[in-house]
Amino acid sequence: MLNYKITIQYDGANYHGWQIQPNGRTIQGELTRALSLLDHRHVTVHGAGRTDAGVHAEGQVASFLLERDCEPSYLRDAINGNLDRDVRVVDVEAVAESFNARFSARLKTYRYQIWNGPVISPFFHRYAYHRRNDLDTREMQRAARLLVGTHDFSAFTVQDSEIEDRVRALKRLDVQREESRIIIIAAADGFLRYMVRTIVGTLIEVGSGRRAAESVASVLESRDRRNAGAKASACGLTLMRVDY
Amino acid sequence: MLNYKITIQYDGANYHGWQIQPNGRTIQGELTRALSLLDHRHVTVHGAGRTDAGVHAEGQVASFLLERDCEPSYLRDAINGNLDRDVRVVDVEAVAESFNARFSARLKTYRYQIWNGPVISPFFHRYAYHRRNDLDTREMQRAARLLVGTHDFSAFTVQDSEIEDRVRALKRLDVQREESRIIIIAAADGFLRYMVRTIVGTLIEVGSGRRAAESVASVLESRDRRNAGAKASACGLTLMRVDY
Repeated sequence: MLNYKITIQYDGANYHGWQIQPNGRTIQGELTRALSLLDHRHVTVHGAGRTDAGVHAEGQVASFLLERDCEPSYLRDAINGNLDRDVRVVDVEAVAESFNARFSARLKTYRYQIWNGPVISPFFHRYAYHRRNDLDTREMQRAARLLVGTHDFSAFTVQDSEIEDRVRALKRLDVQREESRIIIIAAADGFLRYMVRTIVGTLIEVGSGRRAAESVASVLESRDRRNAGAKASACGLTLMRVDY
Repeated sequence: MLNYKITIQYDGANYHGWQIQPNGRTIQGELTRALSLLDHRHVTVHGAGRTDAGVHAEGQVASFLLERDCEPSYLRDAINGNLDRDVRVVDVEAVAESFNARFSARLKTYRYQIWNGPVISPFFHRYAYHRRNDLDTREMQRAARLLVGTHDFSAFTVQDSEIEDRVRALKRLDVQREESRIIIIAAADGFLRYMVRTIVGTLIEVGSGRRAAESVASVLESRDRRNAGAKASACGLTLMRVDY
């Protein structure tokens, strides 16, 4: 058996997220189907990040074992030939047997886009959350800085998370404005369920003046989901890259 | 009656072009419907450029007369409220009675995008023509320079064009590469039907080595459509701006 690592891009609008499901088209499901056809057996696909329904990827990573020994560019084209155009394998590498896209990941980087202006561009409504009223990005950046570091992020995940260890190292949380777009970059060794979207929802409350920037420190300390903001909508979120 | 100038963006994938048609949704048709609702009478909408089916716009311009005296941002929101999200009015201005979006236009700028690489990004397949094999952009730029100027562009429009004056002043024709994307910018006082797409199709033949860069000068001189390349597909084309 040979181990392969692939890099995948997708427009998540028409998918029920990454993870395979009995009903509903998912990215993992589509890749599993394409690879199983190719290898004439069931292929198990391991993904780096389980993106939610509607979330996009510029650099999702997956790994799987094949019986067939394939030239990387042949394998890339063969998989793509069995996928819709909104999912594309952009890179294939043969890797050591020990590599697992999920467990070997060291750093994941997400981008969240907010369109902050009266009219959202027709080229962005699929990829950005639309907020008409001005957000104060300086206050958002001030709040963001208070979240960077190694913390228990219980306040920023689902209330009844079954994951016991909710400590994550948030290495970077930047808020930038480029004309009407606000771009939030979040990088961590791992993210809890809805963590980026809940952080962004809380920063939006800071940016709109409904919450003081300083308050996010006490939200973090409380470890209580009820103190954070509503999670921001999925369409603005993109998994940008996974580092190993 | 008051004269208004609006700037419109649209993703043209789901429209049969700009011009109103008895069957098929068009941008002019959608704007006419929205404005006629608003003014309780039939409103005639004049557009700067008649983009073909599938062509996009970042800065199409239109003008029309209304009986109602509207505050620009109110009018913008009222029109957008009656359009799908893939068409947006981004700017509204009250203008002098003499202004006509079509006849007052001095310069139109189009962009054509080619994705030149083995795998097209899922975020670009709607907005770029995909060409796997390497195109030589230096040769394309060399050919482009031979077309700039005031010429009879009969060779680059429909064979049986009913337009008598086919002389246009092509002010700019630039070919740039940004990683996998090739971006062609064309600016002129006006364009004939299919002119940008036929020029791009001919430049693609130059870039792929099927035609010498110098040959485009004789194509131009021949004024014969049969000597130019096939027109490039609509999805790569975007009307970027109209200057007055």
